[in-house]
Amino acid sequence: MKEFFNPYGIMVIGASANPEKIGHVVMESLLNSFKGKICPVNPRGGEVLGLKVYESIEKSPKCDLAVIALPAEKVPDAVESFGKHGGKAIIVISGGFRELGGRGSELEKEMVKRARKYGMRIIGPNCIGVLDTYSGVDTFFQPRYAMKRPGKGHVSIITQSGAVGIIALEWLAEKGVGIDKFISYGNKADVNEIDALEYLADEENTRVIGIYMEGIERGREFLRVLKEVTVKKPVVIIKAGTTAHGARAARSHTGSLATDAAVFRGALKQHGAIVADELEIFLENLNFLSLQELPDGGKVAIITNGAGPCVLLSDKIGESDKVFMARLSRDTIEGMEAELPPIVSLDNPIDLTGSAGPEWFDTAISHIENDRNADIMVVALTLQDEPVAANWEEFTRILSGRKKPIIVMTSGGEFTKRVSRELQRSGIPVIEYPDAVVRVIESALFSTEWLEIHR
Amino acid sequence: MKEFFNPYGIMVIGASANPEKIGHVVMESLLNSFKGKICPVNPRGGEVLGLKVYESIEKSPKCDLAVIALPAEKVPDAVESFGKHGGKAIIVISGGFRELGGRGSELEKEMVKRARKYGMRIIGPNCIGVLDTYSGVDTFFQPRYAMKRPGKGHVSIITQSGAVGIIALEWLAEKGVGIDKFISYGNKADVNEIDALEYLADEENTRVIGIYMEGIERGREFLRVLKEVTVKKPVVIIKAGTTAHGARAARSHTGSLATDAAVFRGALKQHGAIVADELEIFLENLNFLSLQELPDGGKVAIITNGAGPCVLLSDKIGESDKVFMARLSRDTIEGMEAELPPIVSLDNPIDLTGSAGPEWFDTAISHIENDRNADIMVVALTLQDEPVAANWEEFTRILSGRKKPIIVMTSGGEFTKRVSRELQRSGIPVIEYPDAVVRVIESALFSTEWLEIHR
Repeated sequence: MKEFFNPYGIMVIGASANPEKIGHVVMESLLNSFKGKICPVNPRGGEVLGLKVYESIEKSPKCDLAVIALPAEKVPDAVESFGKHGGKAIIVISGGFRELGGRGSELEKEMVKRARKYGMRIIGPNCIGVLDTYSGVDTFFQPRYAMKRPGKGHVSIITQSGAVGIIALEWLAEKGVGIDKFISYGNKADVNEIDALEYLADEENTRVIGIYMEGIERGREFLRVLKEVTVKKPVVIIKAGTTAHGARAARSHTGSLATDAAVFRGALKQHGAIVADELEIFLENLNFLSLQELPDGGKVAIITNGAGPCVLLSDKIGESDKVFMARLSRDTIEGMEAELPPIVSLDNPIDLTGSAGPEWFDTAISHIENDRNADIMVVALTLQDEPVAANWEEFTRILSGRKKPIIVMTSGGEFTKRVSRELQRSGIPVIEYPDAVVRVIESALFSTEWLEIHR
Repeated sequence: MKEFFNPYGIMVIGASANPEKIGHVVMESLLNSFKGKICPVNPRGGEVLGLKVYESIEKSPKCDLAVIALPAEKVPDAVESFGKHGGKAIIVISGGFRELGGRGSELEKEMVKRARKYGMRIIGPNCIGVLDTYSGVDTFFQPRYAMKRPGKGHVSIITQSGAVGIIALEWLAEKGVGIDKFISYGNKADVNEIDALEYLADEENTRVIGIYMEGIERGREFLRVLKEVTVKKPVVIIKAGTTAHGARAARSHTGSLATDAAVFRGALKQHGAIVADELEIFLENLNFLSLQELPDGGKVAIITNGAGPCVLLSDKIGESDKVFMARLSRDTIEGMEAELPPIVSLDNPIDLTGSAGPEWFDTAISHIENDRNADIMVVALTLQDEPVAANWEEFTRILSGRKKPIIVMTSGGEFTKRVSRELQRSGIPVIEYPDAVVRVIESALFSTEWLEIHR
């Protein structure tokens, strides 16, 4: 597997000089971030983006990884030639295989047979490939102007759907969450979610793994591996195709069968996976788990300068059976009372009012982080208020490196998003909406409990 | 009420030359957008932002609207003076009243008594006031660099919490949704949700009304008015303080009591309101209802170039008991088959694949909009794919002015957000996530059914 992420050279089979072609955009993506050897191959020869194009695989310098962007019919022969020429790993981006059935399925089988002959592994077909922010491998055919890539970080993602992968990556990039590795496995003719999961389990930069899956064939094996991994690091799964409609949609998408949904979701949880019902919650979980320690329990202290959103948050906490409002100790409340002006309201949620600047927050947080009655702190910020807006840099400093897990809940436009990215860069997860805050804490508690029992 | 939105002159009582003071930022906000007379008042005199400051209310030219940003203790006297000087309406931004209890409650009563003497109405205290995008009234003390204002449009918002109002406005501004009027009523010493709702019912530019409320005192009267309004235009309500925790948080916030939650929510629905459980869904509903006609029924046709997100959408549709996958007629399918290449999958969801450009979408949509078996079209776009990204302007044109309600489902970074804003400006609501799509359609259907019965 390691050649997919750390190759010495990448051959782009089907490289094109036409900017509208997939084989062109892939070249752009690679040139932008990969520092090793890149060898474009196309029978027409010539140049692509300043690089000499080799007229055949045989004529190209050797590479251990190939990215293939050719019509399906031509793929098996290209695989064979690359194998003969010393190749180790192949990413097949092209569609037109098993997802179409008939001739497409035959081509897919043939392609795999030829790869096996040379001991090569294949990711795809019908996928967007691999992104590794540390090594610079980036095989996406989505141009950079249309799709941002996240920076270096600690989330890794495995996805059957390229389109869902794109949404995930851009969501993370926009928010300022860094990633380690991304694998879009499409039709999984060879490499599947099990291989990818096993590989990421031991990757040092990966602190949390997210999986989007539709169908699964070797369910029992997947669950066995899942249990091994979830005692090492959290795994968050979004399982699509859970209803009859969804399953039908999945089948015509990657040609794979969705299993009995409710049963399989239950099994995922029993093997330690955090199961997300919605894409945003899936992503919010990955973000939180890549940055913060797991909370010891579900008692939440809320500190705010704008009460309305905290009323909504209190409601969502009230609806949860895992997350609770912390009853702060008398010491904590008296300590705050002594240091804060009388206009603040010290009954959790702690409303410091619109007049609150960084010092008031610092005072409140310093008392609460030493209170055993609180497990996790949610700082609900109306960043648009002048005393916060004007001092956002100090806020970033004050909120960093606290003794208890911390979440900032804030929502807004350009300014808020910019400050949020800075908070994220300082290791503080920012969540926009109350419902997501509660669900992320519930997920983290699931991991806390899982590890208490299984580690 | 109309002086709040269309005054001939606005007096800012407590205007300040210090950029960190609320009375300064309010001046900035007004100067930026209000074209009528603005009269700053402060006993220190001098200048604020190039305007002469009057040393007292009596010395200022007459105005019909006043914005008061003074310590609570000084507010009743200012109200009295403004009444004597010919004032009609007052927005009290300052806090320090009923939400603190005791002396604060007394000041609030006194303030209202004095206003009534002169037949004046008051919005607030403890609020952020009013925004009217058509007249330019903008009393916010959130600086423009930290908080974007939406443009002109057809959503109006009534909110008890300023902080929730800020989130709503910035969400709408970011997305490119225009608004008509915004009213933050805070402690509702005088003007409350009933007055505001009644007023907006007949405002021509307001096509949909959103209300964030915590407590309500005159529940029966509110429901009576609500029923009158919901037969004219949709009203979306998010009721906070629905759990014991939330209710306690609400009480210490604006000093108002949250009523028995489940009962009240039921009553809201029985009087025609769309009740939202979450802030995002509240906002998504406002957006859709301000732009599109109500669908006749819940049968959804999905057209896409990236199947994964549609599998998730199909799942959410499968879980709904109001929204269904449309079974397209034979004519529609055969019509598409004749005009589209064989790689597309025509079983709803219609997957045009990553190769699809504007023409394929145009073909599919043109067939589906004439199919009686479909009530609403969801176009799920992976905008990051080159054939879509490169032709986004043509997409905007193709998706506009269709015969059936349409939603674009798309999610991504900077580029996607920019294109989304253009789609929004052309009247096409953009929703990021599958769950929200289904819930917005459910809400619209609630209105469809309500109007069938009550109109």
